[in-house]
Amino acid sequence: MNSIPFADLDELLHAIQDRIDDGDLAAVVEAVAPATAEQMTALFERLPLTQRAVVYRLLPKERAIDLFERLSPGIQSDLIRGLQDSEVAAIFIDLDPDDRVWLLDELPAAIAPRLLQGLSEKERQLTAGVLGYPKDSVGRRMTPEYVSIRAASRVAEALRRVQDRLDEAETVYTLPVLDGGRVVVGVVSLRDLLRADPDAIVTDVMRPAQVVTAYRDAEEAARVCTGMRLLAVPVVDKEARLVGMLTIDDAVKILELEETEDAARQGGVEPLRRPYFATPVRSLVASRIVWLLVLAVGATLTVQVLSVFEATLEQVTVLALFVPLLIGTGGNTGNQAATTVTRALALGDVRPRDLGRVLARELGVGIALGSLLGLLGGGITAVVYDPRIGSVIGLTLLAVCSMAATIGGIMPMIARVLRVDPAVFSNPFITTFVDASGLVIYFLIAKAILQI
Amino acid sequence: MNSIPFADLDELLHAIQDRIDDGDLAAVVEAVAPATAEQMTALFERLPLTQRAVVYRLLPKERAIDLFERLSPGIQSDLIRGLQDSEVAAIFIDLDPDDRVWLLDELPAAIAPRLLQGLSEKERQLTAGVLGYPKDSVGRRMTPEYVSIRAASRVAEALRRVQDRLDEAETVYTLPVLDGGRVVVGVVSLRDLLRADPDAIVTDVMRPAQVVTAYRDAEEAARVCTGMRLLAVPVVDKEARLVGMLTIDDAVKILELEETEDAARQGGVEPLRRPYFATPVRSLVASRIVWLLVLAVGATLTVQVLSVFEATLEQVTVLALFVPLLIGTGGNTGNQAATTVTRALALGDVRPRDLGRVLARELGVGIALGSLLGLLGGGITAVVYDPRIGSVIGLTLLAVCSMAATIGGIMPMIARVLRVDPAVFSNPFITTFVDASGLVIYFLIAKAILQI
Repeated sequence: MNSIPFADLDELLHAIQDRIDDGDLAAVVEAVAPATAEQMTALFERLPLTQRAVVYRLLPKERAIDLFERLSPGIQSDLIRGLQDSEVAAIFIDLDPDDRVWLLDELPAAIAPRLLQGLSEKERQLTAGVLGYPKDSVGRRMTPEYVSIRAASRVAEALRRVQDRLDEAETVYTLPVLDGGRVVVGVVSLRDLLRADPDAIVTDVMRPAQVVTAYRDAEEAARVCTGMRLLAVPVVDKEARLVGMLTIDDAVKILELEETEDAARQGGVEPLRRPYFATPVRSLVASRIVWLLVLAVGATLTVQVLSVFEATLEQVTVLALFVPLLIGTGGNTGNQAATTVTRALALGDVRPRDLGRVLARELGVGIALGSLLGLLGGGITAVVYDPRIGSVIGLTLLAVCSMAATIGGIMPMIARVLRVDPAVFSNPFITTFVDASGLVIYFLIAKAILQI
Repeated sequence: MNSIPFADLDELLHAIQDRIDDGDLAAVVEAVAPATAEQMTALFERLPLTQRAVVYRLLPKERAIDLFERLSPGIQSDLIRGLQDSEVAAIFIDLDPDDRVWLLDELPAAIAPRLLQGLSEKERQLTAGVLGYPKDSVGRRMTPEYVSIRAASRVAEALRRVQDRLDEAETVYTLPVLDGGRVVVGVVSLRDLLRADPDAIVTDVMRPAQVVTAYRDAEEAARVCTGMRLLAVPVVDKEARLVGMLTIDDAVKILELEETEDAARQGGVEPLRRPYFATPVRSLVASRIVWLLVLAVGATLTVQVLSVFEATLEQVTVLALFVPLLIGTGGNTGNQAATTVTRALALGDVRPRDLGRVLARELGVGIALGSLLGLLGGGITAVVYDPRIGSVIGLTLLAVCSMAATIGGIMPMIARVLRVDPAVFSNPFITTFVDASGLVIYFLIAKAILQI
């Protein structure tokens, strides 16, 4: 193997850009020939928009399709825009039906009918079947190209059936077993078929099937596939009849995009649709400005709260010194709870109906954390400043931590109950909310204890 | 199929707990018999510690091992502690060598030699081979049980070789092709072998191999596997000789644990080793208190900064009103940048050597965001309060946003350069840092403009 080590990606990138600038396309062909699949993907994420189409055209057909399938949806749609209609149609025909739907979801709606037109009748029907399921459902991510086995057949027959369909199916390693009514009664792996007695009946060698229904949320279905360590999961309709298969590589793709979205939302950023360096600076600004504005408007609440207590502040300026510390600690406590619960929801460890249990646990955690911090912080303040200020700080820490952990814990639960993404109640959102309520608590406690 | 729908997990859970309390173990056997793999995993995450071992003992052997392999490492080690030595030894023998290493990494070191002692000579050697690679390397996560194909063999021979080793190997669907010196020269899928001419030479039907070296970081190697949509990736030594295979289900398991860790660290929480409800409240408190204390100590910086400017505050109390808004916006901007860059690093879209480029981009983004917010915030404040206060707020927003985006963007890069987890510079950490520096900027600008 003559491949270039990955550390030399920059070298490869520059070599290719120089050769394109020189107009020496033969040299570009030579430069990319030994690159690994991993390098090609990274290369396409870093090449400028216009050069991607140039390099793509120079790849041998099979390599080009392989690469296309591995690019992120955003890069795919950029590339499509850089190619001519006939080239796009050719790519579209070569994709699997489920990959076609991924791509259609990215492209302007007007293009879809034209692309579907270019398909054979059979391919069009397969693609339309997948397109018929709602967005975010696993039906839209499954492959309709599978090999199924009749429950009553013998192992030798089943193997012949697989052998005859090796070219058509997206997966042949996990085979759904159907009864006469197309209901999934089990699954059998190709490995099990190969090691079974050829005269055995399939029902004797199959295993119980873990299935998902086509309308189930794609992320949940993907977690079933990866969590159960299955190479593919049969997707069924409401009558338990087979309609497709979710393969593990698609499950992984679904989860990776979801993770990226969740991570972004948790940080108060709109998810990027392209890798970092393929995203222009103005898109980075756009992905952040809306949330920043929303949060800044929310933060004007803190200005208003402080205005209400301005007289108190003028009397006891020392109270102002602790504002960032107190609301910062509250925000951190809220973030911690929200982070933990959001991740548990994503993994399916916690479900919406657990709301009460989560509330009780997080309140308990908040009281424990608040007591520890309150004793420590209040004690130190009492020694350094004044015992009355110390008790204000201590009690505020207790109250703010208890409130923040509870709110941070239940916000994501409430989002899930309302069927919105729990990560929408992002950490910055919770911080802003906790900041304002924390200030109210602080000044009420201060006024009560200091009698002002 | 007689399985219980997933919505009835709570019912199943209560039924099992009631029957255990009644001592009616036969009824427990009956209750779990129709449960799906998905339900069994969820059940084990929610059963109290002592009841897990009871139910586990009642499962048929094959089902028990299947379940064990799917449990999270924390739950596995809990379960091990609840079982007797002979039971543990029996589980250990049935695991694949790489799963044994996962488990050993969780258990107290003293147990390892005893468990390894119970293995056959061959199994012990296989396991020791995997154990020999450093923590966090892919060598420690690969399976040493694979079927390899000689490059010079014919397809029919290769298929016979696979057929003979169906029981031994962890994966038989992706087959590494080796030359005489055990160097990987390509891979061939079982599907390609089945559809090839039996007399063809393997080198004519194989594809170029995407390999990873055994010392490469496990997360990176897992991303190669999932990103390239491969069912398995050959793992090689420094001389490109095959030492094992990384299978996609293990790649997914590696990534899921890494994502959970990253999500936790980003939120300023130590990662939990068990699912949410399997984690006692005191462990939740423990996972948060250390970071909260560290951050609270960091936040005392803000108290000190404000003390320095206490005279200014007493003169112009109105300045105090904007403190939470200004440092909140700075924190949010820093979090956004850190979130984006941390995720890009995790996905491999950004590498440590891109430090300069990231710095330039984030500074640009920060200036753009700061200008927009500064004009808006400064303008509104000028109208509502006073033009001079307005210009203080506007300029502070510009300066704080520029600083925060830059720091938020490069902190994770610096962490990666120093070879620590980028998520360690968590959002709360960045917030605390930005809070203190933001206050200094605010009061310096205020003193300059208001001439106090």
